Amino acid sequence: MRQIPRLFVDTQLHSGLQLSLPPAQTHYLATVLRLVPGAELRLLDNRTGEWAARIVAAGRRQVEVSVGAQIRPRETAPDLWLLAAPIRPERFQLTVEKATELGVALILPVLTERTQHLRLRPDKLLAHMVEAAEQCGRTALPDLAPALKLPALLAQWPDDRALIFADEEGGLPLAEACPPPPAAILIGPEGGFSPAERAMLVAHRAARRVSLGPRLLRADTAAVAALALWQALAPRTAGG
Amino acid sequence: MRQIPRLFVDTQLHSGLQLSLPPAQTHYLATVLRLVPGAELRLLDNRTGEWAARIVAAGRRQVEVSVGAQIRPRETAPDLWLLAAPIRPERFQLTVEKATELGVALILPVLTERTQHLRLRPDKLLAHMVEAAEQCGRTALPDLAPALKLPALLAQWPDDRALIFADEEGGLPLAEACPPPPAAILIGPEGGFSPAERAMLVAHRAARRVSLGPRLLRADTAAVAALALWQALAPRTAGG
Repeated sequence: MRQIPRLFVDTQLHSGLQLSLPPAQTHYLATVLRLVPGAELRLLDNRTGEWAARIVAAGRRQVEVSVGAQIRPRETAPDLWLLAAPIRPERFQLTVEKATELGVALILPVLTERTQHLRLRPDKLLAHMVEAAEQCGRTALPDLAPALKLPALLAQWPDDRALIFADEEGGLPLAEACPPPPAAILIGPEGGFSPAERAMLVAHRAARRVSLGPRLLRADTAAVAALALWQALAPRTAGG
Repeated sequence: MRQIPRLFVDTQLHSGLQLSLPPAQTHYLATVLRLVPGAELRLLDNRTGEWAARIVAAGRRQVEVSVGAQIRPRETAPDLWLLAAPIRPERFQLTVEKATELGVALILPVLTERTQHLRLRPDKLLAHMVEAAEQCGRTALPDLAPALKLPALLAQWPDDRALIFADEEGGLPLAEACPPPPAAILIGPEGGFSPAERAMLVAHRAARRVSLGPRLLRADTAAVAALALWQALAPRTAGG
C-alpha cells in the first residue's frame, strides 16, 4: 500500500486553489514517484492545516495541483523551545528532526564556549524538519531561530519561561521537576558547559537545573530523552 | 584537554596483566592518536569493570599495555530489554547506540511481517554499541541477541517479564503505566505491526499496550523516547 505523499508548501491553502509546485517537489512527484494527473496528495501550509489535493498536470518540469477539502486544522505545538548547542552536522540534523517529531514550537541553536561546530546550514536543517513533519503526520513546523551566543540568550530571556538546563553534574531528575509551559530545554555541546557558563546558568532566575539520569548521554540522545520526558510529564502541555 | 581513551577488550582484566591490543585498537592508539609508551588508557572488559592502564610498547603493528588499578566495578544494567524491528541500517545502528547509552541489558532484533530490512550485520551493530559505551562512560555492554520472528519470541516469552508494546493506535500513556523490571520494550518497524500481529500482542498475557504520546514517531525516535521514559519512571530500576 503506497502512502499518499504529504508536502509542505509556502502558500496559504484554500479549497479551489491551483498551484505549481517548486522544482524539488516537482522532481519528487513526477520523476521519483512517477505520479500522473488524478493522483492524490496532502498539502500542508503550516498556517491553516492539512488539505486534500490532486495533481492536475504532471511534467518533468512542472507539476500543477488543485486543492480540495481541508482535512484538519493546524495543530498547536506545545509551547516548548529546544535550545541546543550545534554538534556534528549529521547529529544536529537528527536532533532537529527528532525535536520536530516530538513537538516543539521553536528550535534555537545556542553557541557556547565549547561549541566546535559553528557553521550552520539553516536551509538544510529546515529541510530535515520539513521531511520529518511530512513523514510523521505533523501539521505544524517548529520555527528555526537564528543562532545566539549563550550570554545574549540569557540576557534577553523572557521572564515567564522556565529554562530547563540539563546538567551532567546533577540536579533534580527532570521526571520529578518538570515545569509547565512556557518552557525551554537547553542541551550543551559535546564536552558540556564551561564552569563560567554553568555558574551563569545556575544563577539565572528562570533556570531549573535537572538531571537526565545516572548515565552520561551524547548531546543528541540527551535532547530526545529530555523532550520525550517533558512531553509525557509536563503538568499541562498546550496542544500536547 | 584530551580525554583518556576508554577501550573495551575481550580479556578479563586484573592488576599487573600485560596484553597486546587487536589490530583496530592498535591502529587507533598508535596511528590515529599517536600515543607513545607511558600514555594512560582506561580498559574495560564488560566483566569486572574499568581499569587504569598504560601503554608499554607502541608500534604501528602492535600496542602492548599494562593494567594498573581497578577504577570502578562493572555497573549493573537495569533489567530492561529492547526488542526492535530492524529498520534502515543507519537508523538501526542509531537505535542500538542510543539503547546502549540509555542502559539496557539486552537488545534483540525482532522480525515482523512488515520488516523490510532483514539483513543484519551483528558485528557492525556490536561495534556501534561498544563505541557508544566507550564514549559515554559505561562499564557494561548490552547483550546483542540473535534476531527472532515475533511469533517465536512470544511463544517462548518468560512469564515474569512485562512486555511493553508501543502501539501507534493508542493505549495507556507509558508515563502512567510503567511496569517495574524485569521488562522489555517492543518497537515495531516503519509501517507498524500487521493486524494479525497486533491481535497476537494484545492477547499475550505479558503484554502492556502503551502510547508514546499524540504524535506519530519514527521507529528510532520511538525507541529512544520509550527507553528514556522507562528509565526515568519505572518503579525500581535495578542499577538505575
